[in-house]
Amino acid sequence: MKGKVLEVAKKAKKIGQDDPRRISHSLKVGLALTLVSSFYYLRPLYDGFGQSGMWAVLTVVVIFEFTVGATLSKGMNRGFATLLAGALGVGAQQMACLLGHKGHPIVLGLFVFLLAAASTFTRFFPNIKARYDYGVLIFILTFSLVAISGYRADEILVLSHQRLSTILIGGAICLVISIFLVPVWAGEELHNLVAANLEKLGSFLEGFGKECFKDSRDTGDSSIVAAREEKSFLQVYKGVLNTKATEDSLANFAWWEPGHGRFKFRHPWKQYLKIAALSRKCACHFEALCAYINSDIQEPTSFQRKIQQPCVKMSLESSKALKELATSIKTMTHPSAADVHMENSKTAAAKLKAAIEAASRETETSNLLDIIPAVAAASVLADIIKCIDKIGESVHELSHQAHFKKLEDQSTVSPEKPQLLHRGTVKPVSDVDGDGDSDRDHVIITVHETSLESPENIGNPQAPKSTVPRAEQ
Amino acid sequence: MKGKVLEVAKKAKKIGQDDPRRISHSLKVGLALTLVSSFYYLRPLYDGFGQSGMWAVLTVVVIFEFTVGATLSKGMNRGFATLLAGALGVGAQQMACLLGHKGHPIVLGLFVFLLAAASTFTRFFPNIKARYDYGVLIFILTFSLVAISGYRADEILVLSHQRLSTILIGGAICLVISIFLVPVWAGEELHNLVAANLEKLGSFLEGFGKECFKDSRDTGDSSIVAAREEKSFLQVYKGVLNTKATEDSLANFAWWEPGHGRFKFRHPWKQYLKIAALSRKCACHFEALCAYINSDIQEPTSFQRKIQQPCVKMSLESSKALKELATSIKTMTHPSAADVHMENSKTAAAKLKAAIEAASRETETSNLLDIIPAVAAASVLADIIKCIDKIGESVHELSHQAHFKKLEDQSTVSPEKPQLLHRGTVKPVSDVDGDGDSDRDHVIITVHETSLESPENIGNPQAPKSTVPRAEQ
Repeated sequence: MKGKVLEVAKKAKKIGQDDPRRISHSLKVGLALTLVSSFYYLRPLYDGFGQSGMWAVLTVVVIFEFTVGATLSKGMNRGFATLLAGALGVGAQQMACLLGHKGHPIVLGLFVFLLAAASTFTRFFPNIKARYDYGVLIFILTFSLVAISGYRADEILVLSHQRLSTILIGGAICLVISIFLVPVWAGEELHNLVAANLEKLGSFLEGFGKECFKDSRDTGDSSIVAAREEKSFLQVYKGVLNTKATEDSLANFAWWEPGHGRFKFRHPWKQYLKIAALSRKCACHFEALCAYINSDIQEPTSFQRKIQQPCVKMSLESSKALKELATSIKTMTHPSAADVHMENSKTAAAKLKAAIEAASRETETSNLLDIIPAVAAASVLADIIKCIDKIGESVHELSHQAHFKKLEDQSTVSPEKPQLLHRGTVKPVSDVDGDGDSDRDHVIITVHETSLESPENIGNPQAPKSTVPRAEQ
Repeated sequence: MKGKVLEVAKKAKKIGQDDPRRISHSLKVGLALTLVSSFYYLRPLYDGFGQSGMWAVLTVVVIFEFTVGATLSKGMNRGFATLLAGALGVGAQQMACLLGHKGHPIVLGLFVFLLAAASTFTRFFPNIKARYDYGVLIFILTFSLVAISGYRADEILVLSHQRLSTILIGGAICLVISIFLVPVWAGEELHNLVAANLEKLGSFLEGFGKECFKDSRDTGDSSIVAAREEKSFLQVYKGVLNTKATEDSLANFAWWEPGHGRFKFRHPWKQYLKIAALSRKCACHFEALCAYINSDIQEPTSFQRKIQQPCVKMSLESSKALKELATSIKTMTHPSAADVHMENSKTAAAKLKAAIEAASRETETSNLLDIIPAVAAASVLADIIKCIDKIGESVHELSHQAHFKKLEDQSTVSPEKPQLLHRGTVKPVSDVDGDGDSDRDHVIITVHETSLESPENIGNPQAPKSTVPRAEQ
């Protein structure tokens, strides 16, 4: 018993530590509910609203969600659906009244049946399901309540006015607390999730390039195969495969959000979904690569040694390209830095081709079977580079649609010397956009340099913030 | 305007045709709401329940879901959460009363704040989120309402009794209609979805084996590459990659369902998720195969011709194995028929190895580059067979856990002659389980034979039903 309580407490602590905003969200819900309770406590308000105050409590409990977008979506849906259904309900009432006392209940019953059935059916439309599902639910609920309860109470207009105003007050309290008290924006979540997924893909390729080729050359020990399977970088990409549902709902919620921080109203959220779909495709290819890693690797053949260098180069450069793309999304700068690494990885792919051609001419390749895993891995790697190229294209498209900042000076440097590029030629203060916001540009470039020098900083969402003081000193 | 209405009507028709149960679900919701409305219409009931009749309407609108499991889950959650929160709310009331008139509102406010915050936090626990999310929501709602409204109304026990009974009536109407009127069981949906996904994977491999190798040999025309991309079998597996969220929620809802049809209470639903995860992994490998199909295919080399036959065999046999596994799940029979095809595809994989070895000895393989796509595809195909082998294992595990029917006679036939096996040696009536339900066994085997003779029957969910009359004639 005691052990179980401790276990739950530990779990709760971990959940809170994983994302402290969960704790603040819980406190926000508590606060909103306590505030709305005052509608019952305070006598003057109670006298004004009566039992309807209950609707304010109901509204708060039901519409307060983790992200601002979800709260807004539910609040707007609830508000408009209540208005529309209330009006229709009163109309149905009036029409039924014309039919006299006998026809009244039958006509109202028919109305409720038809409207409920038709509305329920619209919930199967994919676009209504995605954005207005909750609204349709509230529409059915309110229409039924108004149409039916009105049969008893003549003061229906007074009642609905009271209910609407309490719902409005409840909704307003939720929105104010949700937007101004430690807000969690769905759009920003989506933005960070997509960038983090690109980074995960990059980390996998980095690990693949560094570990898999190196170990098999240096030691040739087959016991390391087991060790590799447990390596975290091999598992890291698997999360990318399963985020589709989260991304879709975040994009839907983000659609409701007003402009906030770096994001304008109607930010191109759909483009993030395209990037995410390509990321999943890329992660799929990794699955095939893993099959190569986990197969029994013998002492590397001479063929393997020959193709090893371009393969490592391909992995590392495309990993860098992915990480640059992730950084570009995070800092909302033009993804030109990634192009260089992309070019380099394509060059390496060409070198791989040449190396294979040379190998097939030089040696006898007496046993084709031995080289199959290496050939297959190289071939998959080439497909991955094509896939990353497409990811790059859609990040460029996003950068165009969302007007990311450009750092033009980079384009003058040749692709073959990436190190020089990032250390020497970027001006500390660029004012490309001409918006005079030079401090911000400066910070962004500082972050950029830092992240290149120590790749682990990219994985840390705190990194951009932590460099700000340094830039200002 | 008129065009838009027509478009929506067309869309609605398509949605209804895709799954006619959507129409019946809409009608069921309309019916349930109309029934529950009678609580307001009929005077005696109205006098008994008063305004609380509203709660019955609310309950119906909110808990009536598409599947029985979802409705049950929401109904149970709502019922138990209301009971628990009601009791706690009354307790909190009594405690606050001891503190006199001044402390009362402050203590109640504190209670509401603490309970709402703590309960909201528990919604972040993954297992609570999956199964009891709605219950926690209703718990917060009811506790707040009871604790606060009780401050005004002393008749709280009478009120809560009224509310509980109306909620019970609303819930009961929903459950009865949902279970006895064209029920849609979440468990059966999951069962069919997993089987359909396996079949999709099988169709892809069948198409791959038949089309891709044949065309490139017969015509060598590169314009067919474009045509291939549009081939439906290449797209069919992509749906498999995105069903995780649906499967997870279906499995959660299925957990709530009582035994129904062929499924006992506590059917091993989790095992379906394992099979589904492996299916997705397999679909991932297809992504890599597709890269090979879409790459520019030249006139096939002599090497390609040599490995062609085992590759086609591998595709077709593993396709048959997948389709057998799907049929085995659908008909709930032991998946022994799949083992034969699995063995055959493994034999073909061994032959492929031999063919590659022979090819590398015979020819010079002067240009390794030309054969890379073929080698890569063959290698991915070998990985796919490993993956399908794992799928087969988990279907066997499922068959063991769910006590699928065994057809023992099959095991005596050698794997190399699958055709003979299914036509000649299966007794029309097997009574392995000794349950005397021989008619049913007979039907199952009939289906089995039919499906082998005309594979397209497998894809048709109506097939098993349509053979019943024939078996009984």
